[in-house]
Amino acid sequence: MSVGHEVAFSVKNSAAPSDTDSARAPGLVPRFDRQGYEADAVTARRNWVEEKSGCRLHHVAAFSLSSEEMRGNIENPIGAVQVPLGIAGPILIHGDYAKGAFYVPLATTEGALIRSYERGMVTLTRAGGVTTRMYGDENRVCPVFLFPGVAEAHEFTMRLNDDFPQIKAEAESTTHHGKLLRLECRPVGREVVVNFCYFTADAHGMNMIVKATERACRWILRHSNAHDFLIFSGLSSEKRASGALFAGGKGKTVVAGARIPAALLQRYLHITPDQLLDLWQHTVLGHIQAHAAGYNGHFANGLTALFIACGQDVANVVNSAVGITNFERFNNDEVYVSVTLPSLTVATVGGGTGLGTGRECLSMLGVAGSGGAPKLAEIAAGMLLAGEISMAAAIASGEFAQAHDRYGRNQPAGFDLSHNAS
Amino acid sequence: MSVGHEVAFSVKNSAAPSDTDSARAPGLVPRFDRQGYEADAVTARRNWVEEKSGCRLHHVAAFSLSSEEMRGNIENPIGAVQVPLGIAGPILIHGDYAKGAFYVPLATTEGALIRSYERGMVTLTRAGGVTTRMYGDENRVCPVFLFPGVAEAHEFTMRLNDDFPQIKAEAESTTHHGKLLRLECRPVGREVVVNFCYFTADAHGMNMIVKATERACRWILRHSNAHDFLIFSGLSSEKRASGALFAGGKGKTVVAGARIPAALLQRYLHITPDQLLDLWQHTVLGHIQAHAAGYNGHFANGLTALFIACGQDVANVVNSAVGITNFERFNNDEVYVSVTLPSLTVATVGGGTGLGTGRECLSMLGVAGSGGAPKLAEIAAGMLLAGEISMAAAIASGEFAQAHDRYGRNQPAGFDLSHNAS
Amino acid sequence: MSVGHEVAFSVKNSAAPSDTDSARAPGLVPRFDRQGYEADAVTARRNWVEEKSGCRLHHVAAFSLSSEEMRGNIENPIGAVQVPLGIAGPILIHGDYAKGAFYVPLATTEGALIRSYERGMVTLTRAGGVTTRMYGDENRVCPVFLFPGVAEAHEFTMRLNDDFPQIKAEAESTTHHGKLLRLECRPVGREVVVNFCYFTADAHGMNMIVKATERACRWILRHSNAHDFLIFSGLSSEKRASGALFAGGKGKTVVAGARIPAALLQRYLHITPDQLLDLWQHTVLGHIQAHAAGYNGHFANGLTALFIACGQDVANVVNSAVGITNFERFNNDEVYVSVTLPSLTVATVGGGTGLGTGRECLSMLGVAGSGGAPKLAEIAAGMLLAGEISMAAAIASGEFAQAHDRYGRNQPAGFDLSHNAS
Amino acid sequence: MSVGHEVAFSVKNSAAPSDTDSARAPGLVPRFDRQGYEADAVTARRNWVEEKSGCRLHHVAAFSLSSEEMRGNIENPIGAVQVPLGIAGPILIHGDYAKGAFYVPLATTEGALIRSYERGMVTLTRAGGVTTRMYGDENRVCPVFLFPGVAEAHEFTMRLNDDFPQIKAEAESTTHHGKLLRLECRPVGREVVVNFCYFTADAHGMNMIVKATERACRWILRHSNAHDFLIFSGLSSEKRASGALFAGGKGKTVVAGARIPAALLQRYLHITPDQLLDLWQHTVLGHIQAHAAGYNGHFANGLTALFIACGQDVANVVNSAVGITNFERFNNDEVYVSVTLPSLTVATVGGGTGLGTGRECLSMLGVAGSGGAPKLAEIAAGMLLAGEISMAAAIASGEFAQAHDRYGRNQPAGFDLSHNAS
Repeated sequence: MSVGHEVAFSVKNSAAPSDTDSARAPGLVPRFDRQGYEADAVTARRNWVEEKSGCRLHHVAAFSLSSEEMRGNIENPIGAVQVPLGIAGPILIHGDYAKGAFYVPLATTEGALIRSYERGMVTLTRAGGVTTRMYGDENRVCPVFLFPGVAEAHEFTMRLNDDFPQIKAEAESTTHHGKLLRLECRPVGREVVVNFCYFTADAHGMNMIVKATERACRWILRHSNAHDFLIFSGLSSEKRASGALFAGGKGKTVVAGARIPAALLQRYLHITPDQLLDLWQHTVLGHIQAHAAGYNGHFANGLTALFIACGQDVANVVNSAVGITNFERFNNDEVYVSVTLPSLTVATVGGGTGLGTGRECLSMLGVAGSGGAPKLAEIAAGMLLAGEISMAAAIASGEFAQAHDRYGRNQPAGFDLSHNAS
Repeated sequence: MSVGHEVAFSVKNSAAPSDTDSARAPGLVPRFDRQGYEADAVTARRNWVEEKSGCRLHHVAAFSLSSEEMRGNIENPIGAVQVPLGIAGPILIHGDYAKGAFYVPLATTEGALIRSYERGMVTLTRAGGVTTRMYGDENRVCPVFLFPGVAEAHEFTMRLNDDFPQIKAEAESTTHHGKLLRLECRPVGREVVVNFCYFTADAHGMNMIVKATERACRWILRHSNAHDFLIFSGLSSEKRASGALFAGGKGKTVVAGARIPAALLQRYLHITPDQLLDLWQHTVLGHIQAHAAGYNGHFANGLTALFIACGQDVANVVNSAVGITNFERFNNDEVYVSVTLPSLTVATVGGGTGLGTGRECLSMLGVAGSGGAPKLAEIAAGMLLAGEISMAAAIASGEFAQAHDRYGRNQPAGFDLSHNAS
Repeated sequence: MSVGHEVAFSVKNSAAPSDTDSARAPGLVPRFDRQGYEADAVTARRNWVEEKSGCRLHHVAAFSLSSEEMRGNIENPIGAVQVPLGIAGPILIHGDYAKGAFYVPLATTEGALIRSYERGMVTLTRAGGVTTRMYGDENRVCPVFLFPGVAEAHEFTMRLNDDFPQIKAEAESTTHHGKLLRLECRPVGREVVVNFCYFTADAHGMNMIVKATERACRWILRHSNAHDFLIFSGLSSEKRASGALFAGGKGKTVVAGARIPAALLQRYLHITPDQLLDLWQHTVLGHIQAHAAGYNGHFANGLTALFIACGQDVANVVNSAVGITNFERFNNDEVYVSVTLPSLTVATVGGGTGLGTGRECLSMLGVAGSGGAPKLAEIAAGMLLAGEISMAAAIASGEFAQAHDRYGRNQPAGFDLSHNAS
Repeated sequence: MSVGHEVAFSVKNSAAPSDTDSARAPGLVPRFDRQGYEADAVTARRNWVEEKSGCRLHHVAAFSLSSEEMRGNIENPIGAVQVPLGIAGPILIHGDYAKGAFYVPLATTEGALIRSYERGMVTLTRAGGVTTRMYGDENRVCPVFLFPGVAEAHEFTMRLNDDFPQIKAEAESTTHHGKLLRLECRPVGREVVVNFCYFTADAHGMNMIVKATERACRWILRHSNAHDFLIFSGLSSEKRASGALFAGGKGKTVVAGARIPAALLQRYLHITPDQLLDLWQHTVLGHIQAHAAGYNGHFANGLTALFIACGQDVANVVNSAVGITNFERFNNDEVYVSVTLPSLTVATVGGGTGLGTGRECLSMLGVAGSGGAPKLAEIAAGMLLAGEISMAAAIASGEFAQAHDRYGRNQPAGFDLSHNAS
């Protein structure tokens, strides 16, 4: 941090006479030229925090990322957080995009989580693997248009799609990657929410489609009876849990399923088909009583660990984890297990996907960059299915508390794959 | 990795003749003595991944945590993920636990997020600060007990609380920290879900209370007409979104509120009270249409960034983000803004809270270790409130797309606090 | 009831040796030739009930409907229930279908309900009337198709719409009135729910479209890789509350809105715009906390009373009542009030719409028979809006308890329209 | 209607010069002295409707109720609606309140409904009957208290229960029947919803407890820091569907269950246990996808028909129908079927329960008047269970469309009990 920058920052703050470090007017985080992404600016900022707080930030300082690379991903950087990274696998996947065995990087601090997913993966792999399929692949922005009354809102809705070609042209004029697929109107009183449904390729693309949508909305404002709009209505359920997510449209709709013979269930998961199916039924009832959004054991665990590892926008776990796990009898002596993820948000370009460890973890899965997102979605679905059967088995067999209590000190029978793998 | 370990691992795998690297039978992740937390075991495992995948894991390898410290937090470790860490503040909080100005560490790769939270924090601080209060502080496990018919389930429920002292004694015999507060029964058909409601102090304590509950359940099984139980029913909504979370019980119930004069709204957020209130109303309608669990702008963003920074169990964002943001008119020329978090899961002991950067970030806030969790909860609530007003203002003022589009290259007016702070 | 019938019935029951009137084997309801819709069969059946129960069914017997007309609407008839019928109005409606002032027949036993709706109607009428608009007009059946695995389910979904012309032809071969508009697939694991979306004109038409759908499903079964289907999946939310209803498709999507000047609010409803808007906001928060499906004051009250009066399928109130009430500021001194009903189920042909009082009530509104259903939908929406503002006002003004407590004895100020109408 | 009354009414209307029958200012429904419940007033009002509408209201006029008895149940009466009434049974119930075989009066115009319920009832009865149990029995009003800020709201909540004795005394001073059981606080921002939980004996008692609660709230306002309250917050979910209803408190929590041997399933319902269980699982998935409130086949049908017959407040079907149906394997060759109704609203005193046909139908079940409500709740639960198994079977066996298509003309095999009963 050069003196000049320091001065610039000081001047700004000193202009406010009351702007001291008192509780009444605590100071801003230090300002730097060009927002301070140079290594010494980051150091200076971190030093400032250390002084303020009286804490040594030894680990925060120990990052290998270039601080300049953080520009566009974070502001006021002081370093990086380290989250332990483990590996779970193999999981054999027969998808349209993911084909073969994968070892999945998962970042977590929850003991037993990786062992549990690993156990499910090995079970699925030994059973012949997981089949995955992707249905929809979209993202959306849902602005709301305002009208003087319900008649005008209705008239707008009836006519909007006549202008679709022009609206599409406006939206796509701002981006090379996003494609506007269609508009869906949802009236409420005298306003109309318009779902702008896009294909965004391998990017999550919220910034891209927000920008495209804003441009299109301005065009609509000039060419319709709408008197105003707000770029967000809350309907899209971005980073929120909702019933609307089941209809898809917020990310990728992906399904993973597998058959597992009873003998493998017993060998790896220590349960019978009946135990697994009973567990499903009992816990579905609990979800219904809770009026939960969806039914699953712990999608959030696997998704969070994968998202942190792979540089995803981790807050999207909230919408991505709304989904359904199903366990069914298959023939006499097998089960069919599946997960359905209606609104899975994953990306392989943009956001944190190009940064340091994120990029390395994506590469590990062979999904970094363009063309990778559908494959990542299929891997995510397969991985979650592994977690679902493993957790369900741990509950049904009574081994859950045991595994979580003892893990890390002496390996409990329930999660010890080495013996089973023989 | 010593040769001995290698052999041990090899033997286990070699016992399975088909266990080659073919797609049909891909190999297990390498096994090591004592699960392989020594530095060279971690290196060996990472090397194995590099070989398998053909990727160099340069950044994954660059961690400062001691790998031995990872034991109990992760399995099959290969290194650590780095997530950029920034600082947002100051936010002045008048809580029962958090008192004073805070600079909040947030780990994210979503550009503009920290600047947006910071802008809200400064606005709140300049407005005199945020008042926070904690209501409930509990965690729960909800096993389900099974009976031959509805009569037996009813009889069980009518009698269960007579045995509360013994059940409490059993549960608490497994832990020094968890306190069983009460039992709540929820029948469904011939089964009964029993909510075991605990106080877990500064730990999230799921492992603790699962163990305690399992012990108590075994006692109940011996002393009642129940013929079996499952440790989880799905009702608790741990790491899931549900309607049941609004009644609290899964973590801390915390509220944060503040008055903001119109002049400050205009200066920092570029909107009038009417614009803010209209935005609230329009977006509430969108949430209702989506049948969303709760109403808020982006709790998930702030919570995720805080949880990653502070070594929390990040998957708990899913239940924690179920909450309500409210903006109200106050007198003629002010607004009252608040957030309500019925089921916020934060901890300052256990899990990842003692590890490297997590511990440092908690220390930065003065909440590391015993006694810190309620304070952290209040800081989280205050921080989220800042994010809500800032995002709402960006939407209402039409600056949202602009800010997200340009951020990181040239600082947009909408989020430039330096000028405003003068 | 002829002796022959009596014998036939007796024989059937006597064939079961244990089939006495003891608690162990209580007898069937008496059987008659051709199901017993003749007047004397109904009398005999009622007499049997009177004997069994020891109750005199004086009022049940006092019906004017022809019992033969009940065939197809009820089984084992013993008479009719009488529900008090009142009239509320005038409500001036400016719809695409409903135009003019209406007096709405409402059947209820809840005191004050009609007075409350009437007061709202008069307020709306004096304010210039309600504008109504209809968006969608559909009904649906959602069978689920079963497959061996997720790959087959995916393949089915990708191809289904190629056969739409044949599927449509099959479905429509069973009905002159239902039109199959489109198919929408929703996968979950290895099964696929297919929404069969129909236009059913003025009938609710569930029986019609179930029959059509079943025929189409049998065709699909013969011409696809599906191995079975179930005619219902639960997704349609017929007679159930759900989030999916907000997207419409189960009946008519209708909106009603009106501007009300502050002076009229004060005169008829004794509140200011601010009071009304505050009430909205506070009660929205309560609905969010309850994780309610939608937000409204009491759609169920008005809908139930209208449905009973007009021979509708009253159980459809459950899906129809999922909707949204909105109150907004309009200019300086007015409010804009609206209701949105995404899935309103009303009919003017079929079911109970042709029977006695039902037909008379429909005629009273000018909607009996073909062409009436959209008009009835608009009247229903206008009527509900009246109920919403009246109830909201009663709560906001503190008159609610008062009105309900005293109503029927001495008319409370809050609901006395006579004085206001002068 | 005396001339004097006519004059009085005319005068009121004529005072408004514009108050003609034109569309701009349509006239009020005629006013009468003492609200016009005398027979000739009702006739005059009906005649006025006939004139206005040009319809003859022959059936509406044919009621046996005394019009004077309608006072307090309806306003502006013009007659009564007739709904066909049938009888379904026998259903053998082993409850704490309902003991023995019942024939249930159901009012409906939906063909096949009674036959379907009857078939389920006979199946359950032949299987040995239904066991029913009641858990909670409460009703609630949920006012919201307002405060200047979150600190004051918190302080209020912390202290409220200290005053419980005085609050209870105030509330109960207005009623002989309602008992205030407890208060539960639910904060949101700077407001606090207080659940007033009552026991209301055999009345639904909303008017009673609203009045009691209002009195108690006025006391609280004088003795706390609250600055205002609204009598309703929306949280209670009265006549609305919500997740909160699963925790009970809005009416009676009732469960009904039964074992059914495979042979009886086959004989009466034409399905195997596996078919029934598969149907359950497939349709649960559909409900989850719809984000439905609860899971059941058609609670709304049976409840609506029972409520209309028995003089219940039919709009309460909306909250009562939120519940859960469960079908489970039992031993090798049986199923266990159950329904759970967390918030069933039934009454045997008050409202329409004392009027004509309502009172007769209640008497038929032996539940009229004091002491009857718990028994009615158990009968309702048993009846619903019958409807659930019958409908599920019709879907699973493929007979559904067939039964609904042909019913009333020639009796389909699927619902023909006569043959089966032999």
